[in-house]
Amino acid sequence: MSTEAERRAMRIAVEAAERVRGSTSPNPPVGCVVLDAAGAVAGVGATRPPGGPHAEVVALGEAGSRAAGGTAVVTLEPCAHTGRTPPCTDALRAAGIARVRYAVADPGAAAGGGGALLRAAGLDVAGGLLAGEVAAGPLRAWLHRQRSGRPHVTWKYAASLDGRAAAADGSSRWISGPESRAEVHRIRAAADAVIAGTGTVLADDPRLTARGPDGEALPRQPLRVVVGDRPVPAGARVLDDAAPTLLLPGGDPAAVLAALAERDVVDVLLEGGPRLAGAFVAAGCVDRVLAYVAPVLLGAGPAALGPAGVASISGAWRWDVEGITMSGPDVRISAVPGPVDARPAR
Amino acid sequence: MSTEAERRAMRIAVEAAERVRGSTSPNPPVGCVVLDAAGAVAGVGATRPPGGPHAEVVALGEAGSRAAGGTAVVTLEPCAHTGRTPPCTDALRAAGIARVRYAVADPGAAAGGGGALLRAAGLDVAGGLLAGEVAAGPLRAWLHRQRSGRPHVTWKYAASLDGRAAAADGSSRWISGPESRAEVHRIRAAADAVIAGTGTVLADDPRLTARGPDGEALPRQPLRVVVGDRPVPAGARVLDDAAPTLLLPGGDPAAVLAALAERDVVDVLLEGGPRLAGAFVAAGCVDRVLAYVAPVLLGAGPAALGPAGVASISGAWRWDVEGITMSGPDVRISAVPGPVDARPAR
Repeated sequence: MSTEAERRAMRIAVEAAERVRGSTSPNPPVGCVVLDAAGAVAGVGATRPPGGPHAEVVALGEAGSRAAGGTAVVTLEPCAHTGRTPPCTDALRAAGIARVRYAVADPGAAAGGGGALLRAAGLDVAGGLLAGEVAAGPLRAWLHRQRSGRPHVTWKYAASLDGRAAAADGSSRWISGPESRAEVHRIRAAADAVIAGTGTVLADDPRLTARGPDGEALPRQPLRVVVGDRPVPAGARVLDDAAPTLLLPGGDPAAVLAALAERDVVDVLLEGGPRLAGAFVAAGCVDRVLAYVAPVLLGAGPAALGPAGVASISGAWRWDVEGITMSGPDVRISAVPGPVDARPAR
Repeated sequence: MSTEAERRAMRIAVEAAERVRGSTSPNPPVGCVVLDAAGAVAGVGATRPPGGPHAEVVALGEAGSRAAGGTAVVTLEPCAHTGRTPPCTDALRAAGIARVRYAVADPGAAAGGGGALLRAAGLDVAGGLLAGEVAAGPLRAWLHRQRSGRPHVTWKYAASLDGRAAAADGSSRWISGPESRAEVHRIRAAADAVIAGTGTVLADDPRLTARGPDGEALPRQPLRVVVGDRPVPAGARVLDDAAPTLLLPGGDPAAVLAALAERDVVDVLLEGGPRLAGAFVAAGCVDRVLAYVAPVLLGAGPAALGPAGVASISGAWRWDVEGITMSGPDVRISAVPGPVDARPAR
């Protein structure tokens, strides 16, 4: 029962949500579009950083009196609870909104039920509009955190077509093309935290910051997390003042993620190296793989993934390809864990 | 200057050519459609095995008297020379064909010039129709052989997303899915020869035949070629009577290809193992890579490509992705060597 105007509005709301990804945790990055009574866009908003207004309030503010009798199109069911800000359901009613269309229902016990509350108050409320797109898009990590209690982990790596993460002498700059590397910086900027192992820090001395094409720091930086027991030298780039850095000794993936969850981290980008990535895969702590496969042949050199608890092909981790696209000259493969019952005993 | 009917006819000719790929070498797999004077399809033909008629003669035979005043649509410029069969240019003129449309010009000194000859005889002749599609499709290997003097080599492999061709214990059945494996059998059936190293034969005891979904032999089998110095046991499957097998000691890729060229081989499928594939890549003897990347994570096990003369990332072989498609659950990546001047000194 959604009009074409509502679908268009939801796409604008999704874009608004994508733009604030990385700045809202532990709150979800939500987008909202307010249509006036005639169906024209009167206001667009997205979640402000924690403590700031939610998307609905921002959009209502922009719409002003045009919100009366209009429609609120929101990527997430409006919240019904008072946290650091008052309930959005109150704001929508106060503005005279007549209809609410949201994509994804709020699975939380605390904030959920906003749709039913608004419906009981006489508004015309429906959920599900572009729900799949939103759940796989801007709300992906937050929904995962809501359901599982731990942050969403994307393991990203670049490798040659023959599966090498570096050449025989250890050199790896650059296997992937400039388009892929720029995309990784954008992904870092939208993540809450970036993880690397001490081995990678010692071998490559990476900055782990989000940078633009000219090397300049992007406005938003993830928390840099270095996992492992090898000492990080004081002069390591990861310890510069470009972004905060957290050193986590040990290397148990579940413990790492629990420590990050305590710090309100929702969306994690795991960047290696092979040993740490293997440990995360073996622990079932990777929720998505983003592989940048470059059309490069090396014939020697280390692989991107170290031991992951697989001895024989019958024990392989079997995943599903979620999408393939070209990224400049490279192939970008996104994959997610297969159904739990498809995983063999190991 | 091609009509829509001619383009449609050329697509039918391409399909006809694809169906005979693997049965025509050293002759090219060509397709021909004869349109009658009104533009309706009157005959379809494809190259018969060596010694048999060319595509034009087959199509003209099917068209009979309807060919008079009609159009011949051919994937390759009609031949003007007498080989094992008389020139196709004579057959086209004798049948009263008024117009000829071909895709790709014949680069050969012996058979070329057919277009000019027909034009001089008063026919309306034009080349270039769907030329790119034909040159990258059914005529790919034959054109490569005409230009370079050696067979076209496709290196095919299957690997996990993390670049392993087998698990830690050597098991590899199966990394890729049934769709990919069925496709490889179809590719084998359309190849003139399939190459594997003695190491692979000893380790995996493959049949190297082209088989259907139930294991039955397909009607057409490639020459099986086993390269290397390790002795092949008499009981090896590759020595069964399902298809001819050629044992080639040594392992120099150029020598292997020269030996195959002498045997009229045009289209070669290289199936491994890693050492042989590395030698072929290092020698510049691979013209296409077909990688079946399965969404499987192993974390240990051998890579698909062995040493290929690359020590550092600056010396990497840089190729171009030609196409990406899904093959069941797997990602199929086709790549070709980059421009020669883009290859660094090694």
